Amino acid sequence: MSKDYIISQKATKENIKNIAKKLDINENNLEIYGNYKAKIKYENLKNNQKKSNLILVSAINPTPSGEGKTTVTIGLSDALNMIGKKSCVVLREPSLGPVLGKKGGACGGGYSQVVPMEDINLHFTGDMHAITTANNVISAYLDNHIFQGNKLNIKKIIFNRVLDINDRSLRHIEVATKNNGIQREDHFDITVASELMAILCLSENLLDLKEKISNILVAYDINDNPIYIKDLKIEGAITAILKDAINPNLVQTLENNPAIIHGGPFANIAHGCNSVIATKTALKCSEYVVTEAGFGADLGAEKFFNIKCRKADLRPEAVVLVATVRALKLHGGASYNELNEENINALKKGIQNLEKHIENMKKFNLPVLVSLNIFESDTNLELEIIDKWAIDNNVIYSKTEVFSKGGKGAIDLANKLINIIKNNKENFKLLYENNLSIFEKIKIICTEIYGANNVNYTEEALKEIKKIEKLGFSKLPICMAKTPLSLSDNKELKGRPRNFSVKITDVKLKAGAGFIVAYTNKILTMPGLSEEPNMQKIDIDKNGNIINIF
Amino acid sequence: MSKDYIISQKATKENIKNIAKKLDINENNLEIYGNYKAKIKYENLKNNQKKSNLILVSAINPTPSGEGKTTVTIGLSDALNMIGKKSCVVLREPSLGPVLGKKGGACGGGYSQVVPMEDINLHFTGDMHAITTANNVISAYLDNHIFQGNKLNIKKIIFNRVLDINDRSLRHIEVATKNNGIQREDHFDITVASELMAILCLSENLLDLKEKISNILVAYDINDNPIYIKDLKIEGAITAILKDAINPNLVQTLENNPAIIHGGPFANIAHGCNSVIATKTALKCSEYVVTEAGFGADLGAEKFFNIKCRKADLRPEAVVLVATVRALKLHGGASYNELNEENINALKKGIQNLEKHIENMKKFNLPVLVSLNIFESDTNLELEIIDKWAIDNNVIYSKTEVFSKGGKGAIDLANKLINIIKNNKENFKLLYENNLSIFEKIKIICTEIYGANNVNYTEEALKEIKKIEKLGFSKLPICMAKTPLSLSDNKELKGRPRNFSVKITDVKLKAGAGFIVAYTNKILTMPGLSEEPNMQKIDIDKNGNIINIF
Repeated sequence: MSKDYIISQKATKENIKNIAKKLDINENNLEIYGNYKAKIKYENLKNNQKKSNLILVSAINPTPSGEGKTTVTIGLSDALNMIGKKSCVVLREPSLGPVLGKKGGACGGGYSQVVPMEDINLHFTGDMHAITTANNVISAYLDNHIFQGNKLNIKKIIFNRVLDINDRSLRHIEVATKNNGIQREDHFDITVASELMAILCLSENLLDLKEKISNILVAYDINDNPIYIKDLKIEGAITAILKDAINPNLVQTLENNPAIIHGGPFANIAHGCNSVIATKTALKCSEYVVTEAGFGADLGAEKFFNIKCRKADLRPEAVVLVATVRALKLHGGASYNELNEENINALKKGIQNLEKHIENMKKFNLPVLVSLNIFESDTNLELEIIDKWAIDNNVIYSKTEVFSKGGKGAIDLANKLINIIKNNKENFKLLYENNLSIFEKIKIICTEIYGANNVNYTEEALKEIKKIEKLGFSKLPICMAKTPLSLSDNKELKGRPRNFSVKITDVKLKAGAGFIVAYTNKILTMPGLSEEPNMQKIDIDKNGNIINIF
Repeated sequence: MSKDYIISQKATKENIKNIAKKLDINENNLEIYGNYKAKIKYENLKNNQKKSNLILVSAINPTPSGEGKTTVTIGLSDALNMIGKKSCVVLREPSLGPVLGKKGGACGGGYSQVVPMEDINLHFTGDMHAITTANNVISAYLDNHIFQGNKLNIKKIIFNRVLDINDRSLRHIEVATKNNGIQREDHFDITVASELMAILCLSENLLDLKEKISNILVAYDINDNPIYIKDLKIEGAITAILKDAINPNLVQTLENNPAIIHGGPFANIAHGCNSVIATKTALKCSEYVVTEAGFGADLGAEKFFNIKCRKADLRPEAVVLVATVRALKLHGGASYNELNEENINALKKGIQNLEKHIENMKKFNLPVLVSLNIFESDTNLELEIIDKWAIDNNVIYSKTEVFSKGGKGAIDLANKLINIIKNNKENFKLLYENNLSIFEKIKIICTEIYGANNVNYTEEALKEIKKIEKLGFSKLPICMAKTPLSLSDNKELKGRPRNFSVKITDVKLKAGAGFIVAYTNKILTMPGLSEEPNMQKIDIDKNGNIINIF
């Protein structure tokens, strides 16, 4: 099969105005970016789809190369359109960090892609750059405020700088080392992990965005009083910098179906969902809205429900869990380099990871459908084992071949999905109430979702929790920061770990976004580049086309 | 008069496709960004204007608030269109640093503006962000290369990080302070001062861009051998990141005439011209191309001629020098806070700054036209003094009122311009030959243009020059980095300084851009924010429109 970028470049794309028409969105409500990208002026939309079904696609704990969650999300929406349903896929935006750093894009793959994938993977419509800029303007303003006399008596800045790049060397830096300003320790996070990204994704409109920005906690003064952006009086300028970024982006799938892509990924270190505005725009305009939250459902789905759905009052109808034979074998003890070899024992043992995720999703009262994403290396015997397991355990499941076949490879999944939604009598519910204590909320997530016995806290984390309680922000939901490679906070523990503790190493209040981040173990908020980053391959051909991106 | 942003928002803008038609550019050669911005696919243009006149607008050494050079540039092009000539104004892109930091935009002012000014002043079409990203990806790659084993035996990285923000605290930093990578000193420059910006502006096309990127000197190894981007093998990826940024941007003036805006400002610390591609695109499509280079002609015009025109084989036809009564009084000894008061003595004395710039421009064999940009505070007596001086000295000059009247305020200037071009018999020439030594070239600029007696070098500068000579790059032109506030390298010396030395504190090879930067005195390559940055005022109104930007 061709490489992803070749399939993308050979695609017959429709003009974006025609794609918008499929959602009954008028040209006047578009801000066009070339022929194949547009921003939707969501606030003017009159569309009002009567009954729209919100579907979440998530996954088991993935291998480092991923299980095709995005590919299934795109393929499922294409399949729904193929069988006559009006469906829109809603994804998060790629980050340049992994695009340039790793091998594997964020636009799907094979014949289930959103296009133009090179544009989307690189700068797209500039949202990520706008967030990076807005964030670093706040940092520059804070340091300048101290330099110019420090009227607010700032003692400690807790707001970090960001870049949308994998840059290990910027994890810990010392700024103003030669008398140009006040020397202090700082950190660069990757942009997608920033509070501004979370705020952009959780805002209902531009004025709500401004309100949330004004509530960002950025520093403490000499009396340990909190200092918010509103105390700096720059929320207007920061909102102005994000004025265009708040509008969701419209593109298309390879099968010319609408795709809305907006807001940030990285469900390990951020809440990791695409924007509320994107989701609600799609819900207004189509019968089915297929969205994703990863890496695994322990991070992505949990936060999608408890943070995004709670805040935006969204009611998902069903969850699709993506699994692969390869990942199940990894969870059963096979080594990463041997996943292409048949390994029945490992497969049988690894299924417990999938079982735990199914159990977890049912705690939200949602019907679950498993998508077994087929790879060439899967053997008949391996597939039979999963068939049997599904029958024995009453699991509704479908084999998907979206990578090689596009929407056609998910027709069965689409039909089963429609069916389980029709037959479902239950109502979606959240896992915990906001008015529980911070400790109680973290414990519920760690025990109920991860399967931990208990939770430990470092001194630093305990101190921060006290501070947050004192400030009166304990009634916010929790945003866990945890490795995606295990149900636990230890990436080596595969399958379904039992009898383990989760270690909370730090806790941070994101008063603007409206959640509390709990950091587990040694989770990093700025990735590093590998020994052979993907950027070594990327090039342009003599016609100026990007080649070898993925 | 209304504020700039209100005039801009009330403007009747034409769809950008109609603006393109005025340059005979077909819709197929545009990449549309909304209704009022587009990128021009320059490489496909068949346009071939037979005789096109390139006009440079520059200025005397400005006051800190500027003399309206951009405003005159826009007004002059509007005036040329008004009297039936086909004219296109070509400007550099604003940097977010001063937009958020200072009071005064980069899109002109009053009734001589390019619009939509809020968009152009903020993210525009993302060029600046693309350059920031490309630059910082190189830095991340270099640090990662050392971290992953340092196959190239890098000893010293000389390539800096950048941000398009005024951020004093990032001038000197220490990266990797906690064992995440190799701890070392680094610097952030403002993006517009980066070598990548110069490269983007000096490239003829995408493949030329890639070639120039591959030649960037980024480090020295343990044997003091140079390491270029081509040794890292990431020139393809860096070019891909800049693939869209290389296309020039089309917008319009308030009078609906075409304006091309592309590439970076800051002629104090960069070569400071808009892109060669933008200029050549305009030359292909219109009879008159009015462009600018600032701050004063000592920096902007000198580099425009000796770097940009030399490299791109451009032949300007005339220079317009913008002066104001206010600035002339400053050069005659009036204090900055009293410039609105009549001061005949100061005015008479300050005219020598203008005289020196006129002399300088004649060294390039170009006809010179003075635009006296009228301010409300100018008195009749003051204006009469300049009238008399012009007659006595045979200076062709015109009073312009572009701020309050738009193109109408520059009709006389436009007519005089056409006239001096018609009557000019001389041919443009460069000030120095590239094959002189680095010392000789620097001396020629400092003595002939600045009026210095001699040039001193620090030990560091001398060492760097030796290094450059040894590497075989001494035959490149010089890019001076100097204060714009004086003809000398000391911002306090107003008027026409005499009997002074220029101090060269550092010299840097920009092998990719193809020039050698000579830094004078204490010039900074990363600005800081003032006590009350402009961002404190910027806001959005309840309809989501940006207000109070300028």
